[in-house]
Amino acid sequence: MELLKGACVVGQSGGPTSVINASVLGVVQAAMQSEAITQVLGALNGISGILEDRLIDFGQEDPEELEQLRYTPSSALGSCRYKLADPDVDDTDYRRILEVFRKYNVRYFFYNGGNDSMDTCNKVSAYLTQVGYECRVIGVPKTIDNDLVGTDHCPGYGSAAKFIATTCAELRQDSQVYTTPTVNIVEIMGRHAGWLAGVASLASVVGQGPDLIYLPERDFSMEEFLEDVDATLKAKGFCVVAASEGIHYADGSFINEVEAAAADGFGHVQLGGLGVYLADVVKKRLGCKARGIELSLLQRCAAHIAAQTDIDESYAAGRAAVETAVSGVSGVMIGFERIHSDGEYRCVPVAVDLKAVANAEKKVPTEWINARGNQVTQEFIDYALPLIQGDTEQQTLSSLPRYAKLKKVPATEK
Amino acid sequence: MELLKGACVVGQSGGPTSVINASVLGVVQAAMQSEAITQVLGALNGISGILEDRLIDFGQEDPEELEQLRYTPSSALGSCRYKLADPDVDDTDYRRILEVFRKYNVRYFFYNGGNDSMDTCNKVSAYLTQVGYECRVIGVPKTIDNDLVGTDHCPGYGSAAKFIATTCAELRQDSQVYTTPTVNIVEIMGRHAGWLAGVASLASVVGQGPDLIYLPERDFSMEEFLEDVDATLKAKGFCVVAASEGIHYADGSFINEVEAAAADGFGHVQLGGLGVYLADVVKKRLGCKARGIELSLLQRCAAHIAAQTDIDESYAAGRAAVETAVSGVSGVMIGFERIHSDGEYRCVPVAVDLKAVANAEKKVPTEWINARGNQVTQEFIDYALPLIQGDTEQQTLSSLPRYAKLKKVPATEK
Repeated sequence: MELLKGACVVGQSGGPTSVINASVLGVVQAAMQSEAITQVLGALNGISGILEDRLIDFGQEDPEELEQLRYTPSSALGSCRYKLADPDVDDTDYRRILEVFRKYNVRYFFYNGGNDSMDTCNKVSAYLTQVGYECRVIGVPKTIDNDLVGTDHCPGYGSAAKFIATTCAELRQDSQVYTTPTVNIVEIMGRHAGWLAGVASLASVVGQGPDLIYLPERDFSMEEFLEDVDATLKAKGFCVVAASEGIHYADGSFINEVEAAAADGFGHVQLGGLGVYLADVVKKRLGCKARGIELSLLQRCAAHIAAQTDIDESYAAGRAAVETAVSGVSGVMIGFERIHSDGEYRCVPVAVDLKAVANAEKKVPTEWINARGNQVTQEFIDYALPLIQGDTEQQTLSSLPRYAKLKKVPATEK
Repeated sequence: MELLKGACVVGQSGGPTSVINASVLGVVQAAMQSEAITQVLGALNGISGILEDRLIDFGQEDPEELEQLRYTPSSALGSCRYKLADPDVDDTDYRRILEVFRKYNVRYFFYNGGNDSMDTCNKVSAYLTQVGYECRVIGVPKTIDNDLVGTDHCPGYGSAAKFIATTCAELRQDSQVYTTPTVNIVEIMGRHAGWLAGVASLASVVGQGPDLIYLPERDFSMEEFLEDVDATLKAKGFCVVAASEGIHYADGSFINEVEAAAADGFGHVQLGGLGVYLADVVKKRLGCKARGIELSLLQRCAAHIAAQTDIDESYAAGRAAVETAVSGVSGVMIGFERIHSDGEYRCVPVAVDLKAVANAEKKVPTEWINARGNQVTQEFIDYALPLIQGDTEQQTLSSLPRYAKLKKVPATEK
């Protein structure tokens, strides 16, 4: 097969993770080593940066500084939440993308994001094929939510999981300090899937797991919750609860719907305040001390406790994207397949059809949640524990994290 | 001088820290090595455990498991917020303490806590002296608040500081991801002193410091705050704010007084919700995206990112307490004196009169806050930076923290 020669563009979209830049580094380093790729460009703020011709030239960066991307949290290229229109309705954006791609002779497009970004990838890929412009489009997944289909898990999830499990272990220690009955309710991200709330259970490996865990995959009952908190308090004198922000009643309404006013660019409801709300209910109904603790953005940026396994896999996904594209494949996302050969954890990159991934959402299997709906099972722990292994080798300066500082030199057409 | 022979009791009180058990380990290991100390006891839940004769025998613990206390957060002996009465008004508790001390022949009492605990120490010491019972009483400081007088800083502060500074660095990364103007307001503990909010500035050492920092040592002006956030947004497109939970208007009222309903055992107002409140004001007045992030209990229990300097000093304070007591001194707290000899940071333990420490509160010097009251100065950074150095050597199991599990065998009189 003849090599498709041209520039590549890599962009990032959606909510960041602690390891999202490891994937960009994987793309950039593999692309720089590839004979096919003539220029390695980055799109600032994802697809918006392509539409606005805000591209940078990775060739101008210092290789040592680039290497720091491996341990730098939060989209170094900037992100966006821009949703492309249906090209049959309005193809303005697509024509502009084609124009910019032609300008720089972009023949490879790597997009690093979650569900919505895979939808963007899929649409761009379909459009370019339709108009006969040869360009290989590959999705590089990232999402702490771990809700993409077609992959064992998503880059970014393991590091968020490690932060959550460690924090829950620490909070359980703190919850036992006083003799006064204390309830600590940890609010964890996850709109529709309980992958993040579920990993609180990993702390049970060191005897520090939450007493109760609530996932959005199961309808929430306030009365059962209060019964379970009360029973735990009576048995132990304290109670640690991990709850997904997305838990809801049987009718689909969120527990703290009042708080859920703002909406982001994709029409997602911005949740928050659930922990404080539940703590308030516990205080009033059970008459004990209760506190809501929202882990908030720390879940997606606490790179100081990233899992080295996750960093390595995120990097590998970026490299695999380039190798897959150069080998002639397009319209796929790089996923992971878990190999169950010798009991040891091992995942290998695989190519998954973007059409199967775009806009689909993977939930926690219901059989991984106990009958009462207040804990996950051993299957969940067995699934997630390998993903948090290994300590990050992040560099520090005066014991503080040192991040990559890119020059971001604007690209020029060759 | 003849050795005072007898048992020792160590107890913990007040809010925990990530390294509070390192001090207990220092006491226990030094006491076990001392010729004077015949039995090493621990009081469960501080002074309450003495009043209720709930003492444990450290001699029954496995030495290797004890060693894990060095890296285990949150008072392993349990804490209390019990306030002793004025002995001139009601000496019931003091007579009971004397009775329990006599039962076990306790001649050394080490109390590990903050301001209120030093007050307890001081009262117990004065009472025992008054009734002629020879017992050496030493305070071992701990408080993330860093508000004890008579010491350069407090054990526990450095580790909380490292968590706060690192988290602020990470949140600054996250705040720059989108092109939409974003304000992230980090709510940091500290009722009356801004030591914790101030350390957010350490992130500036790696170019990641908050744009604005507000301490309770200066009256807060909502209008100036909004002006400063607006100016930062215009200049940078984002704004990271670190605010102490205790900031207040010129008339002394807290910014989110409505939220400050509950009160703890010492009559302290329980604060919280300031970040969310300020974010709401910013959203409404400046019309931008804003989020309040409360670091909550993580500040006092995130042992995975404890500073090894802090761990070592906390341990040293425990050992120094025993050595000081055995040498014949009583009624003191172990403080730290910073030696400014060669530009290198060095602190040595010193004995400080408990009467000077009890109930006093050390605030951030006003000259360490800038004129506008929205940043700390280089002096603050120079003071705090040495305290966060060194990475913890905490043991892990499957990449999760492994804590000391004590047997807590009830003590018997020898």
